[in-house]
Amino acid sequence: MAVYTEVSDEALEGFLADYDLGKVLSLKGIAGGVENTNYLLRTDRNLFILTLYEKRVEEADLPFFIGLMDHLASRGFACPLPIRNRHGQALGRLESRPAAIISFLEGMEISHPTPDTCRMAGQTMAQLHKTAQGFDIQRTNALAPTGWPALVDSAVEQADSVEPGMAHLIVSELAFAQENWPIDIPSGVIHADLFRDNVFFLDGELSGVIDFYFACNDFLAYDLAIGINAWCFDDDLGFDAARCSALIEGYSSVRELTRQEIELLPVLARGAALRFLLTRVNDWLNVPPGALVIPHDPKDFSARLRFFKGTTPATFGLS
Amino acid sequence: MAVYTEVSDEALEGFLADYDLGKVLSLKGIAGGVENTNYLLRTDRNLFILTLYEKRVEEADLPFFIGLMDHLASRGFACPLPIRNRHGQALGRLESRPAAIISFLEGMEISHPTPDTCRMAGQTMAQLHKTAQGFDIQRTNALAPTGWPALVDSAVEQADSVEPGMAHLIVSELAFAQENWPIDIPSGVIHADLFRDNVFFLDGELSGVIDFYFACNDFLAYDLAIGINAWCFDDDLGFDAARCSALIEGYSSVRELTRQEIELLPVLARGAALRFLLTRVNDWLNVPPGALVIPHDPKDFSARLRFFKGTTPATFGLS
Repeated sequence: MAVYTEVSDEALEGFLADYDLGKVLSLKGIAGGVENTNYLLRTDRNLFILTLYEKRVEEADLPFFIGLMDHLASRGFACPLPIRNRHGQALGRLESRPAAIISFLEGMEISHPTPDTCRMAGQTMAQLHKTAQGFDIQRTNALAPTGWPALVDSAVEQADSVEPGMAHLIVSELAFAQENWPIDIPSGVIHADLFRDNVFFLDGELSGVIDFYFACNDFLAYDLAIGINAWCFDDDLGFDAARCSALIEGYSSVRELTRQEIELLPVLARGAALRFLLTRVNDWLNVPPGALVIPHDPKDFSARLRFFKGTTPATFGLS
Repeated sequence: MAVYTEVSDEALEGFLADYDLGKVLSLKGIAGGVENTNYLLRTDRNLFILTLYEKRVEEADLPFFIGLMDHLASRGFACPLPIRNRHGQALGRLESRPAAIISFLEGMEISHPTPDTCRMAGQTMAQLHKTAQGFDIQRTNALAPTGWPALVDSAVEQADSVEPGMAHLIVSELAFAQENWPIDIPSGVIHADLFRDNVFFLDGELSGVIDFYFACNDFLAYDLAIGINAWCFDDDLGFDAARCSALIEGYSSVRELTRQEIELLPVLARGAALRFLLTRVNDWLNVPPGALVIPHDPKDFSARLRFFKGTTPATFGLS
């Protein structure tokens, strides 16, 4: 939620000299983006998003992220399209950072999803999974279960200061995930962060998906499990079965879930809750000086995690 | 540099129902604005700025700020125009905060001003002073010398931890200002914060002025003194006499300075440096938890203050 890097008018002019975007009318830093600095760039032709990639993003991953958006958008999936400069490059350098310009996606996030909203989100997720087939760069999920022990280690000592019992919860749930995590269900490119703020709606229709900077290769059903965490809980942390059924129906209308995926969904949802709990509790305990973001409350996900412990496929409307 | 208040899609819809701005296409929080939460609102007709006024702005001052922008813009001065709703109101409430929509001003700030840039800034400042004549709401400058003792008191104990000698500097400069501050030079509405980030340029021409939330009634030459602080120092804090002459020439081409104003300019410039030093050192020492801004370095202004101690009107190219 910040501008980490200021872009001077001179540096912008130099960067844009390689592009064919028209005359610059304004550049406004956008509040949003924990990982990157984002500007809204207005020219006399259009609006664009200018992103400068900061330290938290691995530069080696950028061809995956940019390439994936390009792959999806050029196949009709509603997401930002990376803009290429006159040399055919979509990735350059600005103010000593890797930088890219992507098209501006209209729409707004929905504060209170309905089952209809969730159905559309589920359909779009499955369309993303299908459309990404054939994308030929791979990216390992750095936040898969193999990455969780380090996150447990760095949080466990202070976790009970955030919420009594949280230390035991994360240790025992890590053990559970390590024992029960699937090995051979369908995999492919997943968004891995399809929360409300990354899905835009316009006139009651889903207008597109943004923020592919957690996308990776992983189990497709794990993305759906993240979606259940993201879309199917009330503001008061109550599970909304109608929204969950709609999300899964939407997904299944585009890509049918296998029997194994259905049976593993409680394990995956539980793991997804643990993954977001772990990053949130670490962010909560380690707010760096000069941080320009308010950390999210980890307790949103300890509550989900405790809920998922008691679930079966029937909880999600599956049988 | 932050979004302090989130605006839900439902709340926005309710707020905009009273306006005639077309269909909403997007709403993006803008990084920028220490005092307020700003969104860029895009409709199918135009771009607008939606501002929610946070605690640091006195609600009683809002009719002054909004009214001043309306007064200036409707007389052809290039600044945002507050948009009125169907009931003729430019100020409403959104997410439990006072809120207003203003027109979007094109242009970008200039990273490295030239004498030409400064001449335009000076002209525009004087045009603001002239155009604001006849605006019939008054606002006392809360950051005039009468407001400085409290800022000295709250910073003096820790000031030397920011920079050795700073405590003595602010105490002695407060005394100097209190003895030498003018009483009866020309006054009127001043911007009081006409720094580079509040002045936009497009195609080498000044396209407009934003951020009137420090505007007040005070000595007109004090605004120029703030401008000298804002526009006439290099990145390495060196005074740029050519820029300063150009700023004053630009100003004087629209409104001639009186003999008394010229003679008092060193005192006013010194006071202006003290005023920004005082707010910066207080912000620096009291970064609240959850602050979403990086405080500016107070030393930028202790350096200016020390420079101004040795100045005469001739330093500014005046005689």
